[in-house]
Amino acid sequence: MANIPYKIYLTEDEMPKNWYNVKAVMKELPPPFIHPGTLQPITADELRPIFCDELIAQELNNSDLYIEIPEGIRDFYKMYRPSPLIRAYNLEKLLDTPAEIYYKFEGTNTSGSHKLNSAAAQVYYAKKQGLAALTTETGAGQWGTALAMACAFYDLPLTVYMVKVSAEQKPYRKAVIETYGGKVIPSPSDTTEIGRKILSENPGTGGSLGCAISEAIETAVKTPDCRYVLGSVLDHVLLHQSIIGEETKTACEKYDIQPDMIIGCIGGGSNYGGLVGPFMGDKIKGKNNIEFIGVEPASCPSLTRGRYAYDFGDTGKTTPLIKMYTLGSGFIPSPNHAGGLRYHGMSGIVSKLYHDGYMTARSVEQTKVFDAATLFARSEGTLPAPESAHAIRGAIDEAIKCKESGEKKTILFGLTGTGYFDMAAYMSYNSGTMTDYVPSDEDLEKGFATLPNVNL
Amino acid sequence: MANIPYKIYLTEDEMPKNWYNVKAVMKELPPPFIHPGTLQPITADELRPIFCDELIAQELNNSDLYIEIPEGIRDFYKMYRPSPLIRAYNLEKLLDTPAEIYYKFEGTNTSGSHKLNSAAAQVYYAKKQGLAALTTETGAGQWGTALAMACAFYDLPLTVYMVKVSAEQKPYRKAVIETYGGKVIPSPSDTTEIGRKILSENPGTGGSLGCAISEAIETAVKTPDCRYVLGSVLDHVLLHQSIIGEETKTACEKYDIQPDMIIGCIGGGSNYGGLVGPFMGDKIKGKNNIEFIGVEPASCPSLTRGRYAYDFGDTGKTTPLIKMYTLGSGFIPSPNHAGGLRYHGMSGIVSKLYHDGYMTARSVEQTKVFDAATLFARSEGTLPAPESAHAIRGAIDEAIKCKESGEKKTILFGLTGTGYFDMAAYMSYNSGTMTDYVPSDEDLEKGFATLPNVNL
Repeated sequence: MANIPYKIYLTEDEMPKNWYNVKAVMKELPPPFIHPGTLQPITADELRPIFCDELIAQELNNSDLYIEIPEGIRDFYKMYRPSPLIRAYNLEKLLDTPAEIYYKFEGTNTSGSHKLNSAAAQVYYAKKQGLAALTTETGAGQWGTALAMACAFYDLPLTVYMVKVSAEQKPYRKAVIETYGGKVIPSPSDTTEIGRKILSENPGTGGSLGCAISEAIETAVKTPDCRYVLGSVLDHVLLHQSIIGEETKTACEKYDIQPDMIIGCIGGGSNYGGLVGPFMGDKIKGKNNIEFIGVEPASCPSLTRGRYAYDFGDTGKTTPLIKMYTLGSGFIPSPNHAGGLRYHGMSGIVSKLYHDGYMTARSVEQTKVFDAATLFARSEGTLPAPESAHAIRGAIDEAIKCKESGEKKTILFGLTGTGYFDMAAYMSYNSGTMTDYVPSDEDLEKGFATLPNVNL
Repeated sequence: MANIPYKIYLTEDEMPKNWYNVKAVMKELPPPFIHPGTLQPITADELRPIFCDELIAQELNNSDLYIEIPEGIRDFYKMYRPSPLIRAYNLEKLLDTPAEIYYKFEGTNTSGSHKLNSAAAQVYYAKKQGLAALTTETGAGQWGTALAMACAFYDLPLTVYMVKVSAEQKPYRKAVIETYGGKVIPSPSDTTEIGRKILSENPGTGGSLGCAISEAIETAVKTPDCRYVLGSVLDHVLLHQSIIGEETKTACEKYDIQPDMIIGCIGGGSNYGGLVGPFMGDKIKGKNNIEFIGVEPASCPSLTRGRYAYDFGDTGKTTPLIKMYTLGSGFIPSPNHAGGLRYHGMSGIVSKLYHDGYMTARSVEQTKVFDAATLFARSEGTLPAPESAHAIRGAIDEAIKCKESGEKKTILFGLTGTGYFDMAAYMSYNSGTMTDYVPSDEDLEKGFATLPNVNL
């Protein structure tokens, strides 16, 4: 076998031509979305006012293992993909571990993260359907940036409801979205009914992701030929993100790398679902015995401390009900929480895989996450996003265990993005003023109290 | 010939093992550095208190065409190199030009630019010499970040004098440097004599690059086992940057790409000198007839409107005298100038090549630069640094000429970095408040009046 280079790039010929739909091999499917009024499984027709047709078809597709990536999307992917699979030689050396560490790095595009993989697909299909405009929400801003980039490329107008506190704290993120031609509205705003309602009840609120989702959906439904797009959680988003896992698997096979464990950060679950998809499919078929580990913030612990229940996807309770691990749509992480990964719920697919024991999860506190981020930056060069640093923390902890036990495990993790727009959080860490927060059981009960009172 | 992929990555085996020293093939050498006291050519011994020994040897090496890159530096390069040579298929389509456009993209590392190529080398040699610390200056912050990354990797303390107005306007850049362990001191400061002098004369000054250089040199000279490192202008910096040109040339040869012109932005000249080095060497030998074009800001036009004269490298007039195109070390660009490329002088090598007619130069106004930057971002995805966008402007202008003439030229340009930390400038452009500035002849005369009164 050839020496393993620091960075493995696939050639254009080796790039995936299909997405991988893990649902087609799952022994039990995630329970269907439920209409909150009828309490019946949602139909494609009911989703049509909100989502683009092709995305609905993908969302409800439980049978096709491979779904072709149209050439118009593959051309977009070629601009910034394949992303490198990197051997963390320097981190290994610094940790003095017998473990081999690899990471798939999705941050080599201007959006700074994996979000672009689904943004490209969603905008392509919207344009193909002849839609006139799109709406979305963004929190930290990665998704909004990714979507603005795709909308600039495919030439489609975009309105982004940006969580107000983010828009104020991250004017530069807002400026990037605007540079790509996206219109940014801080949320809650007076442009929607739900926004006006929230503002009248809480005039000083900094907003939330759930509220921004509600506003974006309302605008999409009320505007002709306009649809809403979502950057995580949903099955079709995980489908698009499967390109991460497919590239990773191809690179591993090319260099005979056999991961013992695959670690990723989990917020809505799209990055992790995409990274592990093809490997998980093989595990379900009994072809590997990889340990899958999701790492989430202790301050927003949906998998490790949430409930597996039907819940709304947004604060305004306008979405279908999704069976997922959730803290309740009313749960809001403590203000001292720095990174992303602040969504109250979790992808239905990831939730089901976790529920059925195919993966484990753990939570970590943020100062330890930034310890890992800094160690990584100084040894591997790249300054990671705080979200991604949850995965680094997990990988470092496993590499240290290997050092203690002497085991030579192969650890692979997903480095979803860069932290160039998260320097306020790094400044807080560098100055020693960053604090940790673990919600008490009472705090969590307040969130659970917002779960819908349905018997499903 | 194989189809040309969007992005050409060399394999590790194909990566250069030597730097390319263009001085070894130049028919006439740039005139030597002059000691401002003795007015004699500077000696290695006179440079030793300021610079690391190996870098002085490289600076004065006019005979070896290839200089080996030590393995310890090649290992660092492997973390973020090779950088891709990208075919700008989407930009070509948008411009509807018969030209083929390629760009060598140096922004895929956390420092966001090519600066890391020389930072790695300089810190490696300093460590090898057993030095205890380094000092430097930074303006926009790319060089300071690059050096902090290299110092973190090779474990050497670093003090960065950051132009005060930059440190205030770019707290996040400062935070990145600190995350990598660098100590940032806004300049002018009270830590040096020259800083205290400037502060007492101009208490409210926002500082300048020339002033920060003076402070960094003073500190290096007065601190035991400490040296100063510089990120541009000098011959050894261009030598390290030649890896850009060597990778580009190898990629071109692999895919039979024959550039008709090579365009780059020019500030101190290190990126452009490095990009064109090996191609220029061939041109000098009569092996190609490539047109070399440097693009500089109209607000700081050292090549197009400067004088070819001996001048100091810094405001404090502490450096050796360098024969270069210069606006005078007292020249300071108008405050409305947004990007980098604000140095009063120009690399001695680039100055000599320009003087001898091997390359041309043009200047562009900044709103036109941001027009090009935005067009590029929306079509090619990557948000460019304002500096880099000068080269984009040049390439787009040439591609438009090709459309008008019907010529199918091959245009290659250097995209030195990303603009993620330059969003204040983009915001000014997006809001329509950005203005242009072209210094009057009278403005330039004020700068020329600061040239040293020597007859050399």
